[in-house]
Formats: sequence, C-alpha cells, structure tokens
Amino acid sequence: MYSGTNVDKYSFRNDYSESAHPKIIEAVLKLAYETNTPYGMDKHSEAAANIIRELCGKPEAEIAFTGGGTATNVLAISAFLRNSYEAVICAETGHINVHETGSIEYAGRKTITIPVGVDGKLTPELIDPVYRAFESEHMVVPKLVYISQSTELGTIYSKAELTALSEYCHKNGLKLFVDGARLGSALMAETNDVTLKDLGALCDGFYLGGTKNGLLFGEALVFTDPEIADHIRWFIKQKGFMIAKGFIVGAMFEEALKTGLYFDIAKYENESAARIVEAIKQAGFKLYTEFQTNQIFVLLPAELGQELSDTYGCFIQDRLPDGNWAVRIVTSCGTTEDAIADISAWFIKKACAGIVKSYIGK
Amino acid sequence: MYSGTNVDKYSFRNDYSESAHPKIIEAVLKLAYETNTPYGMDKHSEAAANIIRELCGKPEAEIAFTGGGTATNVLAISAFLRNSYEAVICAETGHINVHETGSIEYAGRKTITIPVGVDGKLTPELIDPVYRAFESEHMVVPKLVYISQSTELGTIYSKAELTALSEYCHKNGLKLFVDGARLGSALMAETNDVTLKDLGALCDGFYLGGTKNGLLFGEALVFTDPEIADHIRWFIKQKGFMIAKGFIVGAMFEEALKTGLYFDIAKYENESAARIVEAIKQAGFKLYTEFQTNQIFVLLPAELGQELSDTYGCFIQDRLPDGNWAVRIVTSCGTTEDAIADISAWFIKKACAGIVKSYIGK
Amino acid sequence: MYSGTNVDKYSFRNDYSESAHPKIIEAVLKLAYETNTPYGMDKHSEAAANIIRELCGKPEAEIAFTGGGTATNVLAISAFLRNSYEAVICAETGHINVHETGSIEYAGRKTITIPVGVDGKLTPELIDPVYRAFESEHMVVPKLVYISQSTELGTIYSKAELTALSEYCHKNGLKLFVDGARLGSALMAETNDVTLKDLGALCDGFYLGGTKNGLLFGEALVFTDPEIADHIRWFIKQKGFMIAKGFIVGAMFEEALKTGLYFDIAKYENESAARIVEAIKQAGFKLYTEFQTNQIFVLLPAELGQELSDTYGCFIQDRLPDGNWAVRIVTSCGTTEDAIADISAWFIKKACAGIVKSYIGK
Amino acid sequence: MYSGTNVDKYSFRNDYSESAHPKIIEAVLKLAYETNTPYGMDKHSEAAANIIRELCGKPEAEIAFTGGGTATNVLAISAFLRNSYEAVICAETGHINVHETGSIEYAGRKTITIPVGVDGKLTPELIDPVYRAFESEHMVVPKLVYISQSTELGTIYSKAELTALSEYCHKNGLKLFVDGARLGSALMAETNDVTLKDLGALCDGFYLGGTKNGLLFGEALVFTDPEIADHIRWFIKQKGFMIAKGFIVGAMFEEALKTGLYFDIAKYENESAARIVEAIKQAGFKLYTEFQTNQIFVLLPAELGQELSDTYGCFIQDRLPDGNWAVRIVTSCGTTEDAIADISAWFIKKACAGIVKSYIGK
Repeated sequence: MYSGTNVDKYSFRNDYSESAHPKIIEAVLKLAYETNTPYGMDKHSEAAANIIRELCGKPEAEIAFTGGGTATNVLAISAFLRNSYEAVICAETGHINVHETGSIEYAGRKTITIPVGVDGKLTPELIDPVYRAFESEHMVVPKLVYISQSTELGTIYSKAELTALSEYCHKNGLKLFVDGARLGSALMAETNDVTLKDLGALCDGFYLGGTKNGLLFGEALVFTDPEIADHIRWFIKQKGFMIAKGFIVGAMFEEALKTGLYFDIAKYENESAARIVEAIKQAGFKLYTEFQTNQIFVLLPAELGQELSDTYGCFIQDRLPDGNWAVRIVTSCGTTEDAIADISAWFIKKACAGIVKSYIGK
Repeated sequence: MYSGTNVDKYSFRNDYSESAHPKIIEAVLKLAYETNTPYGMDKHSEAAANIIRELCGKPEAEIAFTGGGTATNVLAISAFLRNSYEAVICAETGHINVHETGSIEYAGRKTITIPVGVDGKLTPELIDPVYRAFESEHMVVPKLVYISQSTELGTIYSKAELTALSEYCHKNGLKLFVDGARLGSALMAETNDVTLKDLGALCDGFYLGGTKNGLLFGEALVFTDPEIADHIRWFIKQKGFMIAKGFIVGAMFEEALKTGLYFDIAKYENESAARIVEAIKQAGFKLYTEFQTNQIFVLLPAELGQELSDTYGCFIQDRLPDGNWAVRIVTSCGTTEDAIADISAWFIKKACAGIVKSYIGK
Repeated sequence: MYSGTNVDKYSFRNDYSESAHPKIIEAVLKLAYETNTPYGMDKHSEAAANIIRELCGKPEAEIAFTGGGTATNVLAISAFLRNSYEAVICAETGHINVHETGSIEYAGRKTITIPVGVDGKLTPELIDPVYRAFESEHMVVPKLVYISQSTELGTIYSKAELTALSEYCHKNGLKLFVDGARLGSALMAETNDVTLKDLGALCDGFYLGGTKNGLLFGEALVFTDPEIADHIRWFIKQKGFMIAKGFIVGAMFEEALKTGLYFDIAKYENESAARIVEAIKQAGFKLYTEFQTNQIFVLLPAELGQELSDTYGCFIQDRLPDGNWAVRIVTSCGTTEDAIADISAWFIKKACAGIVKSYIGK
Repeated sequence: MYSGTNVDKYSFRNDYSESAHPKIIEAVLKLAYETNTPYGMDKHSEAAANIIRELCGKPEAEIAFTGGGTATNVLAISAFLRNSYEAVICAETGHINVHETGSIEYAGRKTITIPVGVDGKLTPELIDPVYRAFESEHMVVPKLVYISQSTELGTIYSKAELTALSEYCHKNGLKLFVDGARLGSALMAETNDVTLKDLGALCDGFYLGGTKNGLLFGEALVFTDPEIADHIRWFIKQKGFMIAKGFIVGAMFEEALKTGLYFDIAKYENESAARIVEAIKQAGFKLYTEFQTNQIFVLLPAELGQELSDTYGCFIQDRLPDGNWAVRIVTSCGTTEDAIADISAWFIKKACAGIVKSYIGK
C-alpha cells in the first residue's frame, strides 16, 4: 500500500507487523506541537467519534477508544455483563475463548462455548438449545452473544445472517456484540453486504479495529445504546485501559476515517489476499474455509504446511485428522508487491504433479 | 525542548498533553517500513531491554514493556501478590489508592494505606506498626510495599531513605516496588542521589515511565528478580495489556535510551519547572511541598488557586483547612519558552502588596 | 441460659464457642424425620422469612438465609455494588476492613475507610468530606455505607444517629447497610431505642445474626427493597454460599423467632455481661468504650491484660500508647452462672490497692 | 436407615432433603454444653482430621472442613491454581462447569471442558489432545484435572482408571482433584475397588462429602500434599467459607467416622438404590448409565418421565433426541422402607405391555 518493506524475509504472519501507515504517523507528529486534553477528552477523539456516529447512523451512540483487541473485548463484555452471574455465549473458536488467556474469566465472567463449523459462525439454531438449558440459579444467566466480523476463520456474516442473529438475540433478551478487530476488512470484502449502518441497527455493540487496519494501535468501541455504556470511563480506568494520551488514538481514527484511508487500507489488504488466493488455486491447492477477507486458510500436507509456516511466519490454525494442515496467510497494509509475488511463486513452484498428487484426502 | 506549541492557551496541567518528542515519532515512522515480530518479541524490545538491564546493573532482570501507568502497577502488583490473600502497603496518597479507580481491588487485592506527611513518603517507622498488626488468617498478609519516585507530591526519596525502606522490607519478608511514572524526572533532579543501579540493587521491581517522559505511550517494567516475573507474559495477555505492535514501545525506549534523549527530556522538564519556581518565590508565594522534580505544588488563596487552575489547566491537589489551596503545575517536554514566561509573569503580576498580604495564614 | 458447661476453664472469648441452644437443636432433630425442599426453598425458610418481614414492617422485603457473617457481608455488598467501580464506605474499625481477610477486595470492590473514635461509629459529619472527594472516573464511586449494630466496639447507634445516617445516605444517593452479626444483643440492650421496624424503615439492608445468638450457624439477610436483591440466589450459589439443607437455617430462625427465644438469648447475654461490668466497676477498673451490649472492653495494665486473656481466652483489642490494654470480654447463651462468678471474682481479687494504684494513666 | 419420614409424598429428589442422621444431631447437642475453640481450631476437628489422615494413609495431609460442595470445589481449585492464568480441565458434565453458576470463573479461573460419554468420565485419551493445544501466553495454562467420584452420572472410576489418570496428570505436571460430594457412596459401591488409601496415593486432593452422607452440612477437604494447602485458612476466610462454630463440622465427622456410621449410611443409600433398580429391571425399563452408587438414571418415555418427576420430585437429567428422558432417582439416609416400596410399585405398575411396548427406540 505504500513503498517497500526492507526486511530479511517476507511475512504473512499477521496484519500487525508494521507500525502504521505513514499518513497516520504524520497525523501523530502534528500532535507533538499541539496541547490536548488527556484521557480521550480531546477534540480529535470527539471528531472521530462523531464521524463514527454518522457512519453507523447512531447519533446517540457512545464511542470509547481503546488500545487493543483483548482490552476492547473485556471492556465491552464487562459493560454488557454488569452482574457476575451473567455470561457470554460464543463460538468455540471465538477469540475470547481461545486466544485471550482467560481474560473474560479473569474478569469474573463465564464464556459459554458452542461448537461451530469451519466457517466459525454462530446461528440462532446453534445457540437456541444451549441457551434453553440455562434455567435456574444453579447456572449462569446468558446475557450476551459474541461474534467476530470477520470471524477468526476469515469469513463474514451476511446481512441476512446478522439480522437473524440480531432478531434471535433481542427476542430472547440477549445482547449482540461484534468483535471488529478486522471489521475494516469485512466491510470492504467483495462478498460483503453489511454496512456500518446495518451494524448500528442490528448490534448493541461492535468495534472498528485500528491495530490491524494501519493504525499504531487503537480500536473504536461503539455502544449503540448509550445506557449500556453507563460509567464506561470508570470501567476503562479501573481495568488499566485508559490511555493518558488518548488524543493520539482519536487523531489516528479521525485521520483514517475522514480521508477514507481506513477503508482504502482494508481494501488493499483484501485485494492483496485475493491475488494470493488466485495463485493458490492455480497451483491446485484447496482452501480450508471460504476466502472472503484478508485471511486465507490454505490446506496443505503437513510437511508443506510446516515449510509455508517457516518461510512466511504463517500460523498453523489446525492439524486435521486426515493429515492436512490448515495454514493461515494474512495480508496487511504493509504487504508489498514483492511479497505477494514471492508467496504466489512459492505455491506455483509446489504445484508440480508430485506434490499435488500426494495431497492427502484428495 | 523542541519548537513551539500552537495552542490557544498554555497548559501546565500535566506531562502528557503532547503526543511525543519528534525524534521518538521519527523512530516509529521507520517501523512502518520494517516487519517485526508482534507482541514485544522483537529485536527493538530486546535491545531496549538490554540497555535497561545494563543501566540498572541487573543482567538477569526481566523487562516488560507496557502501555500505561495503571496497567503497569496492576501488572507488577499481580506478579508480586500471586495469592489473593496477599496485600500491598502504600501511602494514603499513593496513586494506586487514590487515582486508579480501585484497579488493585478489581484485581482482587487489598491496599493497606498509611497516612503520610505532605512529602507523600513512606518510612520504616510509618510502616512497622501497621505491618505488625497483621497476624492471623482473619487478616490479609502484607507482602509488598509500593512507593512512587518521584512521589505524587513531586518529592523524591534519597538514597538513604530508599536504603532504609529496602532493608526494612527485606528483613520482614516484604518486597519493594517503585512506581516510576516520573522516574526520569526523579533521576535527573538536582537533589537526587539515587541511580538506576541503586534502584536495581534496592528494589524488587520498578518502572521507567515513558508516557510522561516524551514517548507516545509505554512504560518499561523491571523485575530485578526474574523469578517474580514467572509467566509474566500470561498475566500481560490475560489482563488485556499485551500490545500487538509491541515493537513500537521497544523502539521508542531503544531510541530514547541509546541516544540519552530519555534523560535530556527529564532534565528539560525539571529545569523548566525550576524557572517557574524561581518566579513563584520572587513573587513571594510559598510551596506546599519541597520542589524537586517537574511537579510544583504552590500554595495560593482559594480565589487565586481557582484562577491559576482556570488559566493553565492546573490540578487542585488540596483545599487546606486554612483556606489556601495547593495547586499543581507540571512541565513537560512540550513546555515552551513562551509558556514558562507566561506563567512566570502571572505570578509576578499577582505579587502586588495587596495579594501577598492577604495570603491566608501568613 | 441453660444448664452448665463442662469445660476445663471458663471462656469469655466470644459468643460462638458452644454449638447452639438445646431448643434449637431439638428443632433440627425434627427435620431428620421430615423431607424438605433443598436450597432454602422450603416451608420453614418461608415461615421464618415471613416472621422477619412482619417484625421489620416490610412485607415486600427479600430475605436470604446464609451461613455466616463474612459470607453475608460479601453477599450484601455484591448485591448493592453491582458494578466493579462502585465502593463501600466503612469505619476503619469495620469488620469488613479489619477481620475478613480482604473478602470485599477479593470480590473486586474497594472499601473506603474512615477513622472513627473509640465508639466505632460513623456519622454524616465523618462521611461527608470523604464522600465529596470522589469526583471523577479516576476514582471509585461510593455507593454504600456499611455500619455494624452493635459495632465492633460493643456500642450501638441510637435511633437519632441511625436516622441521621439514613437521611444523609439517601440524600446523597448512597445505600445504608447494617451488619447485624450481633443485632439481637443490640436490640435487647437497655440503652437501645432502635426497633426492627426502625431498621426496616431506615436501612436498605441489614441482617439478624444467628451464629452469635444461639443458632448452630446462619444469618438472616434482609433487603428492604427487593429490587436490590435482584437475582440474589444466583449470587448466593456462585459465591459458594448456598446451603444444600437450607431448611435447617430456616427452621432454626423459625423456632427462635416464633417462640421469642432469639430475643431471650440476646437479653441473657446482655444481662450476664452487665453483671460482669458491675464487678469490674466495683474493682475500680475502667472501660475502654461505653458498655451497652454483650461485649465489654476493659482497660487493664498490659500484664493484667495478658493474664485476663490467658485465663479466659479474651481477645486483646488494642495496646494503647499509655501502656494500658483494651481487652474484650464476651458473653454468650452458653455463659454459666459459675463462669460469671469466676470472672467477677478475678476482678475483685485484682482490686487490691497495689494494682489499682499502678493503673497506668490514672 | 432410621425410623420413618412423615411427609406428604415420598421424595427421591436428592440425598440432602433431611437434616441429618439422628446420631449426628446427638453429637451436636453435646457441643451445646461444651466450650470449643472457634474457626475449626478445636479438638473435634483435630480428631476427625487424624482419623481421615489415617484412613487415607497420609499422616502429613492437610484437612480443611468446609460447609458445602461448591465452596469446597472453589477452595480446592483456588489452592491448586494460585495464578490467574492457570486453568482446570473437567468433563463437560462436571459439576463445576454445569451447576455452580460460574463459581470458578467468579474466582477468576477458566474451566476447560471436554465432551465425555454418558458415564461422565474423563480419560487420559480424552484429555491429551486438549491439553496439548495450550502452548503460548495467548492461552491459559492447564494445571489441574477435576473429576468426581462418584460422577454426576452416578458412575465410579475403577482403580485402574484412576491410576491411569493419576499417572497421566503427574507425568504432565498436572494435579488431580476428586470432587467427593458422594465419595461415601462411591467407596461403598459393590463394583468399587478404590480405597481411601488409593485416593491418598493417587490424588493431590479430594473431599469426603458430609452433606449428602447424613451430616447436617460439611465436607472434609484433603490435600495429600500439605504444600498445596499453603495459607489455606486465609483462603477459607477470604472467600467467606470459614465456619465460626467449625467444631460442629469436626464433631460430626469425628462421630461419623469413628463409629463407622459414615460408611453405614453410604452402604444403606446404595442398597436402597439397588432395590429400586431391581424393580426397574423387573418392570422392563432400561437405565441411561450403569448403576453403581446411590444415583439411578432411568430411561423413560417423556410422558412417563414427567410423571416420575412429578410424583417423586426427580430431576430430569437429559431429554434425549430419541424422545426418551433420563430421569434421576437418588436415595438418602432418610429413605424409608415405605418409600422404596412405593417407587418400586410405581415401576411395576407401569410395566404393563402397553407402556413398555411404546418405549421409544426399543
């Protein structure tokens, strides 16, 4: 998206291996010469919040800028689940269940997990029997459904799917929260039909990820119903999430959103990933999950999976019983032309008859 | 410290109202073109940690880079107090007691508070009778003493004072932790005789504040005994304190420490404050506490205190029974010549016979 | 109160050294031959709750039977402070601050402590300046005032004092909770003018202690406003406080309250203590606090204090700077005539000129 | 086990619907005339602890008497998992996962759940793949395996199964804890080959349930390694689990164990259940799980399941996809001859050709 990365080897490990898009850093530099009110009570945070309110069609929404994904999830869930006996429902693959070191439990809340398919998505049909089982004071009270857009498997909920979830939740007294660490990428997906206004209308809370979308750090947490956010600044401070120089986050979001850079970065990430997917398909390899955003999950024989992981720092998502591995490739705003060409060539190179024939389970 | 701030009015509210020293931001910009391992496992964080290890004479120390002060205090205290029945002793004015919205209690630990004088300092003599009172399973077990350097009142512990505390703690099975949100300023104080090596030798943990010392954000938490830090990365992640792009913090500390900028900024802050103190004294006003670092606490009649607060965004520390107010003036690396001149002139202007005569309690 | 205790030495350590009044145990024996619904959903608990509702003039009150004092305090405070940033104000000598091993902090809530006099009582005047200091999201939000009736120092709040506290709290959006571990003794004190109906009218919650009033165990927690108690059974279960055979507690309270035994026991405790106080005064010794209930705090020279403690298992409340000790003598429903005579004789025996003359500070 | 229950209808709801075996209550009555040291520091608790130490062949074991099952599990798990990032592995049907209202999460710890068969048992084979997945600071650290003996499904681990689990755990740095709410019944099962000495040798902790085995309340928690129990009394107090009159629990266990009553009660419960199982089989109904202890899980068509539940207060364990229900029948020390005859007759009565033919899935 911007001129070249001078590293030893190309990385497709994740979308947070470079500091930030240079235009974002430029905005931060301006703040060195400007005195701002601390703790997020500044004009940039207010401006950014107003843009977000307008984008999601919720003029009364409460916006809280936070530092990172886990903190944002913990904060949101604490706001939704005021009472310690209330619990959150999520997919077994949900980030809060798998990769946050028990942060929700550390905050004293139970996560109720539901096994899902390889798309990582929850549906009313999956939730309902689990939800119905909670019936007495000997069990927690489910109060919130947590999903991710895009999911941990790179897929996205369609508007129809999101609407069904929203209706199910609200009919049953549940709130709906969307982890948007990669919301930019989801919004700009070719297959996407969900707008920010839809999120505003259908969800009780969601966040626009900044860290994985070209900012130094920072997420914009949106509570569509400001009552849910009651005393949210007390929560933020108590949990150690308050950012002294909160105006930095505000100014980064302001810059990214008012110029459209936020969406350009997401689009670039998706398009870069699409080019790699093309090479994967040409090479005859299969995907583990449908490709939709900036995360690709490719199926490879174990040996090849290890090589891909070693060469490009890729995360091994799953070691399947059939011997194949699902390996993750992620593009970022710092992904260069050279890097895309390099990994594409890797796949083509492996596409000799021998290897593809040996594809386990083929 | 660097060229002018273009704000509406000069601010002496705190030392975190500008984003960062431009040289720091330059270092961050370089990272836009460089791929780094996430979560603080990068070469910059390692380099910065090694500089810190050398500076404090503890080659085996464990260093954790965190995002802000409250998070750092919570993290450190959680590492020191593994068991929920263990407690931390602090001054009644201690930051963790007063201004962190019960973050220690949220983490499930009790703070045992001890009334202190206007210097905000703990001594073995103050601690001992309190410590002795905890004797059975019906009471918590004090395990840690928390102090700040500089203190919340801008004062600093001398080497003799710190040594006495350290000896008392270690003789009694207590650990000693130093909140160093403003450690740079303390180290560079004219009256200071405590080195980083002394801190390394006398304390079990301390941190070098970055947020209030010219960095965008970030603190460097030092555990002199690496065993205390066992599994510290699990704590960091679980509490929502892990920084995805941790290499940004590492690179900022690397830049600030290897060039000496970290200490230059602190020195500049102190010297700027010293010039304002001179004006205050010339004008005939008194200080609430001894001036030593970059925080000035001036005594003013209530009306004048309010005016100073309104004009320069100053925090009102205390409303004394005698009618005077203790108002805080803080300098930062963004404090300009013009700002210093402006507030100095304000004091001189007020120094007409009438006002000084009316000084309550004079 | 019932025939003799066959122990090695007489004990005045506390009011929970015998199992229970025999009539109470008789009621429990009946339940061996009766099948009851578990977890407190039984007819005895309902009957006991109804008696309590009538006694305190609150037909809509929510009553929860619990196992012991600390559990009851934790439960009540959790119900009052739903949000982790909310805090409870108490006397520095308050049981929750001193003798519950940080149970409130373990539950994630901060206790705001206020220094009080030797009577251990809070007043609006003591609370107000502390309460006023909490003003921003950097500090917790005081939401509840916790007092004990009788206090940890054996004193009781008068109706006027309780009314003043209640009015102050409710005017300031604070709730008022009364720890009634020794409420029976307080209600039956000669100097008492507070009825259960007064408590019902003035407080938002309080409990009738059973453990220290002749029951095997158990406290009756009263929420005068049932909304405060929302989902209280979920809290009870989650905290590990639910009693499988809750009907035992219900039946003990039913028996104690419907026969008046509850009040007879308290009266007996107070009268036994009064007889000892008479001996103390005859012997020329002074009390540390006003004698009102079943706890006596006598001032003795250190050596004598130690002897009293050794002989009768008494708790040493305070070692005063003047060399005297405040030693606690407690009577229970198992205190015998012989025991009263024995400790009275001890005081008289010490009343020789020599010892009384040596009374420090006389 | 003792003469008749005078209730409206016979109950097979659970094993805690009567207060206690009369002999136990007799022991408690003696304590009304005896002064004992509070908080479990008394001679009866010490005597009971010594009997338990001898029974399980662990003279150095630490014994803690607690009030109920959830409290005991929370206490044990807190002792095993000192650090908030440590987690407990259990069966999906485990009591701590399903029926304790998130008490483990309230204590800040994650439960890692593993789907198990209808026997409710964990095996090394089930644990291993789950355990292996936890590999970085982004995930919790499994430290403890929790099982129940008997399980929530009434089955028991054989000595071979327990040994395999123990070996697996200890080879992998995991501790093994056994919830013994119904340990008496398990020990006295006809099919049982596990002794208390085996438990002492194979487990790191377990408890002997009292509440469900004829005591008023109370469990005896055994830590075979006293180091695990470090400062356990501080945990007990802080969590609100300390019993003021702890000597009552001590004396009940002393009485039950020294006279063998503890085991007689368990045996009686099992034998009563066996007689009902005989009737069930005669009537042609099937069991959901193998019958081993004092819990019977019978498969019935939904309508009949509802009738059984309505008539005898039975808990519906599962509504199976095939239309049958698994309904639980529990016997207790208060189960009378008449009650056994009554429920046996109910099954025989239903055994007419029509109903058994309609047995779904037959």
